[in-house]
Amino acid sequence: MTDLQNTFSTPNIDVECREVGLRDGLQILQTIFPTDEKLAWIQAEVACGMPEVEVCSFVPPKLLPQFADAADVVEGALKTSGTLISALTPNLRGAQTGFKLGIQKLNYVTSVSVSHNQSNVRRTPDESVADFETIVAERNELPEDQRPILAVGLATTFGCTIEGRVDPKAALELGEKFIKAGVDELVVADTVGYGNPAEVKAVMSEFVQEFGSQVPIANHFHDTRGLGMANVFAALEAGIRRFDASLAGLGGCPYAPNASGNIVMDDLVFLLEGAGLRTGVDLDQLVAIREIVARNLPDEPLYGMYAKAGAPKGFRTASQAA
Amino acid sequence: MTDLQNTFSTPNIDVECREVGLRDGLQILQTIFPTDEKLAWIQAEVACGMPEVEVCSFVPPKLLPQFADAADVVEGALKTSGTLISALTPNLRGAQTGFKLGIQKLNYVTSVSVSHNQSNVRRTPDESVADFETIVAERNELPEDQRPILAVGLATTFGCTIEGRVDPKAALELGEKFIKAGVDELVVADTVGYGNPAEVKAVMSEFVQEFGSQVPIANHFHDTRGLGMANVFAALEAGIRRFDASLAGLGGCPYAPNASGNIVMDDLVFLLEGAGLRTGVDLDQLVAIREIVARNLPDEPLYGMYAKAGAPKGFRTASQAA
Repeated sequence: MTDLQNTFSTPNIDVECREVGLRDGLQILQTIFPTDEKLAWIQAEVACGMPEVEVCSFVPPKLLPQFADAADVVEGALKTSGTLISALTPNLRGAQTGFKLGIQKLNYVTSVSVSHNQSNVRRTPDESVADFETIVAERNELPEDQRPILAVGLATTFGCTIEGRVDPKAALELGEKFIKAGVDELVVADTVGYGNPAEVKAVMSEFVQEFGSQVPIANHFHDTRGLGMANVFAALEAGIRRFDASLAGLGGCPYAPNASGNIVMDDLVFLLEGAGLRTGVDLDQLVAIREIVARNLPDEPLYGMYAKAGAPKGFRTASQAA
Repeated sequence: MTDLQNTFSTPNIDVECREVGLRDGLQILQTIFPTDEKLAWIQAEVACGMPEVEVCSFVPPKLLPQFADAADVVEGALKTSGTLISALTPNLRGAQTGFKLGIQKLNYVTSVSVSHNQSNVRRTPDESVADFETIVAERNELPEDQRPILAVGLATTFGCTIEGRVDPKAALELGEKFIKAGVDELVVADTVGYGNPAEVKAVMSEFVQEFGSQVPIANHFHDTRGLGMANVFAALEAGIRRFDASLAGLGGCPYAPNASGNIVMDDLVFLLEGAGLRTGVDLDQLVAIREIVARNLPDEPLYGMYAKAGAPKGFRTASQAA
């Protein structure tokens, strides 16, 4: 593991957690989460010490009505401080929206699976790389203090609902293209919860070996088949120190009824802090945020074992023990 | 890892799974599972290739009415073949019941936490070791072909609801005493779901290093705080190749409402087979057994992500790929 993997926007932490519930969690839901309640959620995340919050996706409201309030949400979120405010963009147009709003980080996404990328953004992965090169060029024309960090998510690295198994070599090759294009961070994603910890450890070790000295590498896991936390531990073993997750595991999979979505942020922080890795996140405050989600989405299942069972007797987080 | 960790009762497997749902899953439930339905469950486990099924606990019916039919269940289970039929016993009297019934394996339990052992069986751990020595002696007086395997579960190794954190050294010391007493297998248990994968890997590596050349070592994990599968992967990394689990994660924790109990057998088999480790268990057949549990316990929550989401597209188990 290189030092670069241990360099974070927040001081005194060992692992960086990033809340994606407001984006990946909300995007498939029919219920529109009110703008002021999104802002209450974001403010609570900032208050509990979350290093990054992905607050929306820059897509046409016709496609995802949940993000019709993206401009208001980003504007409100940017009034907070201490937490990186990011947004997802599938293309140049979304990135341009982000530039205008002064977003601090953009998470661009491309699927390793050609079929999945075609289905998702109607482009080949190479066309997505070309699109990203334009985003980098336009970002670099902004005044230096207004340039957002540009991350790229390599979706379906561990499998895809259309193609099934995906060759990890394709993910590594695509990662290299994005590094040449000037990406600031790679986010290796198990988009549909196909990943197995043995494969995760092997593939992420290759990512760290190949690119670890050039960019920070993160993981984005889904818990669709129950292996999310095992995949986190496998990635930790490979040297990964940045993880996406969603409060209460919000965001089921639209293709698998009753199947859960993102890994649960509360359980992730419990795993990391219990392993002696400081996250900078106050676990009690984090768990309390579930109430904001619950009151706005009374019919959605909230996941997370830690919140239900409570802390082990005498449990001290790594931060408390430090 | 020693060869002993890869020596199983079932041929051509890489990891041995043991179904404990009929014992650990049922023991805290008020609803009595009918005897013939227990036998249907056991037969289905045998049919799907499960290497060991723990079918009951030998305790007075007054304490656990769920096991009042232990004799009938063991007798029925022993008519099957290909699967090791085991039972839990907390003491010599239970072991003697097992001897009479011709049980094939006895799982004796002692808590590493002194307070937990006192509360559970009203003895110090050392008194439990002495009790176990008598069990070994009586077992050795049986005709050679009637001697059950004697395993010992080291409960609360990773923490305890009374004492909180438990010193792993105490677990290692207790394990050594049981090895001197003649135990055939050690089962290191996270009884209340306090374990963290970083600690599991460290502690289980010590167990394998200290005792791996003398006895097989197994793990018994609970998923109470969501880290069960991560703990399995951590234990695999330490060289452990035997795991207890419960179909559909049956068996909540009586002290933590809504908290789950044992790790989910279906998710465990999915993890192992996906990691290229043959279990000998037919995953489709295993998932189908959930129906037997559901029809007898309509009000109990059934856990397990794999069963809800289904197999990844094109997924092949290690056995299918072999």
